Amino acid sequence: MDIKSYLKDKQGLVDAFFKTYFSRQQHPPVLQEAMLYSLFAGGKRIRPILALAAYETCGGNPRDIVPYASTLELIHTYSLIHDDLPAMDNDDLRRGKPTNHKIYGEAIAILAGDALLTEAFSILSDATLSSKVSVAHLMGALREIALASGLDGMVAGQVQDMLSENREPDGETLQFIHSHKTGALLRASVRIGPILYGSSQTSLDALTAYGDNIGLAFQVIDDILDIEGDTEEMGKTAGSDEKINKMTYPRLYGLKRSKEIARNLVADAKAALSVFSSEADSLREIADYLLTRRN
Amino acid sequence: MDIKSYLKDKQGLVDAFFKTYFSRQQHPPVLQEAMLYSLFAGGKRIRPILALAAYETCGGNPRDIVPYASTLELIHTYSLIHDDLPAMDNDDLRRGKPTNHKIYGEAIAILAGDALLTEAFSILSDATLSSKVSVAHLMGALREIALASGLDGMVAGQVQDMLSENREPDGETLQFIHSHKTGALLRASVRIGPILYGSSQTSLDALTAYGDNIGLAFQVIDDILDIEGDTEEMGKTAGSDEKINKMTYPRLYGLKRSKEIARNLVADAKAALSVFSSEADSLREIADYLLTRRN
Repeated sequence: MDIKSYLKDKQGLVDAFFKTYFSRQQHPPVLQEAMLYSLFAGGKRIRPILALAAYETCGGNPRDIVPYASTLELIHTYSLIHDDLPAMDNDDLRRGKPTNHKIYGEAIAILAGDALLTEAFSILSDATLSSKVSVAHLMGALREIALASGLDGMVAGQVQDMLSENREPDGETLQFIHSHKTGALLRASVRIGPILYGSSQTSLDALTAYGDNIGLAFQVIDDILDIEGDTEEMGKTAGSDEKINKMTYPRLYGLKRSKEIARNLVADAKAALSVFSSEADSLREIADYLLTRRN
Repeated sequence: MDIKSYLKDKQGLVDAFFKTYFSRQQHPPVLQEAMLYSLFAGGKRIRPILALAAYETCGGNPRDIVPYASTLELIHTYSLIHDDLPAMDNDDLRRGKPTNHKIYGEAIAILAGDALLTEAFSILSDATLSSKVSVAHLMGALREIALASGLDGMVAGQVQDMLSENREPDGETLQFIHSHKTGALLRASVRIGPILYGSSQTSLDALTAYGDNIGLAFQVIDDILDIEGDTEEMGKTAGSDEKINKMTYPRLYGLKRSKEIARNLVADAKAALSVFSSEADSLREIADYLLTRRN
């Protein structure tokens, strides 16, 4: 299996959906422009791809859930736009481009984020977008994503992240931040595969364990890249975590130990897939791929 | 029928739901505090009450949909928090209290809004919260609310409202702003009643017409109150629309004609209820009540 072409193919499905879905003319046009600016700023569509691969692992055809999987990218994009705001992380650069508020101003950036979040739920509540998914399963996936995104998930992680700047790092807080800020949505990305398919509890449990490990590994690797990557490769300012004294794995455990932790998490993620045979190969390759990514 | 005690009773149901639902300890606590600060800042729960009254009009017991109706207030509250931000309307006072960002800072205010919006969809996707509503009807109501809140509804209205400050008022733009910024969610509030109940198309159409008229009337009256009300009674700074040259009905049509428009809209809303007999009395009284409100 060629993981690069697998990822490119699935990314193409997601991008094609966005192009069609957002092609109708909106009013006022600046809102649509601002949403599309960040949505097409070079995101790798990791979250939708995880959902598509997990659905495939359960026996489904990924093409049947492209709209629903794509909503994960809408939510991820909204969170980046809001995180970059002057009142939050105050970032000027994201994926090598000026951040949303640098182009459209703060007000439109806030509203574009709000619209992206809301649009995710509009899509997730449109049962006509797939003939293969029952309304009950779709509702289950929507709830999974909502819970991972809000008060008990991503938003809680972002709040704790901000509160922890310039504070002494401790393992418990760091674990809370990562499992909520990025881990929760990555976990949900994997879980909506079996939920939309209506898989057995055994499959759901195995994929949940995979998602938990991948979710944490992803963030540990992000922390490492913030130190080791260069600004050009990453498309965001290297060393920006250190600048504002973010609580990170390398800061708490050092670089060498952090890399070991990431490797172990990826190994655990793959071990969780032992209930599947070759149908989970894409998820196995994605896990390995995350370990070698440079941006 | 005593409309004041009707409203107070329904408001009590909504407040009791919020108190129970948000009673579990959240982490980090400041996020929960900020959400509850705005949620209990004196909102009249008009949107949930419209949903409860519409459900009752269709033959249901309002108590069966309190959690779902309450989500309208979560979304309304999120929109107020974001609208008040310095980058948007930059308001210091809301319902007689300092605005959210004045107390908690901009970052937490943005995130509290994000969390309130997301939590609405968590609640709307929890089919266990009512034994009387089918999953398909619940999904329909969720979709109704999502569409009214986002890119084609409330957010679009807020963007156009900002773009129109200090511009010459015109009827078409004003109609767009009002029907999207406040009208869409008020319309959805009324419509989720028949949608959750699974009513006939005739009932849905009648209630939609009521909702459209009530939605627009509500905003015209708001515009009038911004000029005629006093700051103390309204709990927000009187004349604030004029200060930033907002596009309003009185600015375009004058006060006298605006009051006439509001009265006509309320009359049209009540006329739309002619397919119902006494079961729609609460909606009729609510329409009259809106015309006489002072804040």
